[in-house]
Amino acid sequence: MSLDTAAVKPHEALGAMLETEMAAVDRLIHERMVSENAPRIPEITAHLVDAGGKRLRPMLTLASAKLCGYDGPYHVHLAATVEFIHTATLLHDDVVDESDKRRGRPTANLLWDNKSSVLVGDYLFARAFQLMVEPGSLRVLEILSNASATIAEGEVLQLTASRNLATNEDVYLKVIRGKTAALFSAATESGAVIADAQPEHITALRAYGDALGIAFQIVDDLLDYGGSTSATGKNIGDDFRERKLTLPVIKAVAQADDQERAFWRRVIEIGKQGDDDLEHACHLLAKHNTLEETRVEALDWATKAKSALAPLPATDIKDVLIDLADFVVARVS
Amino acid sequence: MSLDTAAVKPHEALGAMLETEMAAVDRLIHERMVSENAPRIPEITAHLVDAGGKRLRPMLTLASAKLCGYDGPYHVHLAATVEFIHTATLLHDDVVDESDKRRGRPTANLLWDNKSSVLVGDYLFARAFQLMVEPGSLRVLEILSNASATIAEGEVLQLTASRNLATNEDVYLKVIRGKTAALFSAATESGAVIADAQPEHITALRAYGDALGIAFQIVDDLLDYGGSTSATGKNIGDDFRERKLTLPVIKAVAQADDQERAFWRRVIEIGKQGDDDLEHACHLLAKHNTLEETRVEALDWATKAKSALAPLPATDIKDVLIDLADFVVARVS
Repeated sequence: MSLDTAAVKPHEALGAMLETEMAAVDRLIHERMVSENAPRIPEITAHLVDAGGKRLRPMLTLASAKLCGYDGPYHVHLAATVEFIHTATLLHDDVVDESDKRRGRPTANLLWDNKSSVLVGDYLFARAFQLMVEPGSLRVLEILSNASATIAEGEVLQLTASRNLATNEDVYLKVIRGKTAALFSAATESGAVIADAQPEHITALRAYGDALGIAFQIVDDLLDYGGSTSATGKNIGDDFRERKLTLPVIKAVAQADDQERAFWRRVIEIGKQGDDDLEHACHLLAKHNTLEETRVEALDWATKAKSALAPLPATDIKDVLIDLADFVVARVS
Repeated sequence: MSLDTAAVKPHEALGAMLETEMAAVDRLIHERMVSENAPRIPEITAHLVDAGGKRLRPMLTLASAKLCGYDGPYHVHLAATVEFIHTATLLHDDVVDESDKRRGRPTANLLWDNKSSVLVGDYLFARAFQLMVEPGSLRVLEILSNASATIAEGEVLQLTASRNLATNEDVYLKVIRGKTAALFSAATESGAVIADAQPEHITALRAYGDALGIAFQIVDDLLDYGGSTSATGKNIGDDFRERKLTLPVIKAVAQADDQERAFWRRVIEIGKQGDDDLEHACHLLAKHNTLEETRVEALDWATKAKSALAPLPATDIKDVLIDLADFVVARVS
């Protein structure tokens, strides 16, 4: 089935299969984002939570749990936990990146202020930890608290690695494993663990989440040099302006001649950017074919994600998870 | 025993009694603040952790556990958890308050940048959650995750309550219970819980931590209008310049005539402050005797803290906890 002609997108198919549970997750999220004392908290949280994100991460937790034969109720708590962690990181990311647009809408730091974004993010982290304690599974707590540390570590690494032309593909992989794949893999793994799945199924679902998250982030970074604002909801060239070293640029820097290196040094390390520099950067990426190479890597990770699912029994949900891996890279396929 | 003439201060006495355990806490903190991938994390964390804070909160956890007959080892993990949460909130607070000085030294947001402070704070929160999972006590996890949510809620409430002359003493109490007392009471309660103490001892130690934290914060807010820079390590008038409504001002606003009200509206709500305004604010606090009234409230909370300990058996540690309540208010006694 070609994804371009598919009537129903896989995350929508997953949403339909998990309709009851996703409604429960949504109720739990709205119930727990309330703050009796500080009304600004639900105000800001609603701005993000109700912005029409795909809710990919909580769906992954629910799908994993169901795929491993779990009937509930605690996959709902874990799914809400994962969405809270995700929302908290979005709030803090937008402060750190000084972003003004998220999912096609003004960011919270723009509508309110940085202070509110920092503190409401902290509140959502804490709410996530309260929620994850409720199922009473220490193994799940380990997975999710480890993921939280890995996410923050990835973000700090990104901060120090950006603006530094010495950043190589190894560092890039660590950064995106932290900032993106850690939560995907924790989402799938915790779903399997709460279902008390057999060890090889837990490992398989964790590996699926990891590879899916990496594919997802590589595509995101690729689209920053090639997508359109309407398709991604973000501005093209954001990473360039923020002087982040993402895979297409890292590959181009590795092949740069002296003159190109001087260009990258000026725009990324020194940060002196003029009007035509984004265009010239895109020209260099095209010259060295790095957008294509990056695209191939994204497809490889999607393939890895699908292969990881091999040990799991064939079910509707497994089929949709396979489709989802294709869908994540479909924007660049 | 008068505290002014005491040869050994109570937190030093406590430090001496808990010397072995505090050394273990210190080792654990340094071990866990390491990040293999992002060296900026331990760099920034060390700047705060090694700045010579009194380590009051981790000592409270250890003291509580020992007072309830616990021999370890997990009180050390909980003490390190509490210090990590505290350090994370300091990093985020200094970003939110745009502070340039903490414990008499330049803040991390000044030495590095706001981005690093936000993300390293997130990392320390996550490390705190990893640490608190290790003892395997769900009850302790509830206490500490609830405290984290209350802290963030208090900070958000402070943000919206500041610059608003309608903020009254009830709101103020909620703010300081959140931003300060919640971690004090979680520190003492979790120590008692890990010791498997009897319910009334757990309740007593939680109440002690709560009252001690409230007394501590009221004194801090009072000194902001009366202490000296060398004594507190912070600048006098910080709260005034940040337009925070703390107890001395709330009490003065409640008694203000029309002209005074116009003054408070200008300097706090509108934020138009001139050179002599801090001096005039202090004059109004003196006129309405609110520094003295605030001082009396701080002493009352210290008395409550001491009374809360009544159900606990008389031991050396209990004596020092009583002295500690006096010590917290000694700077204004």
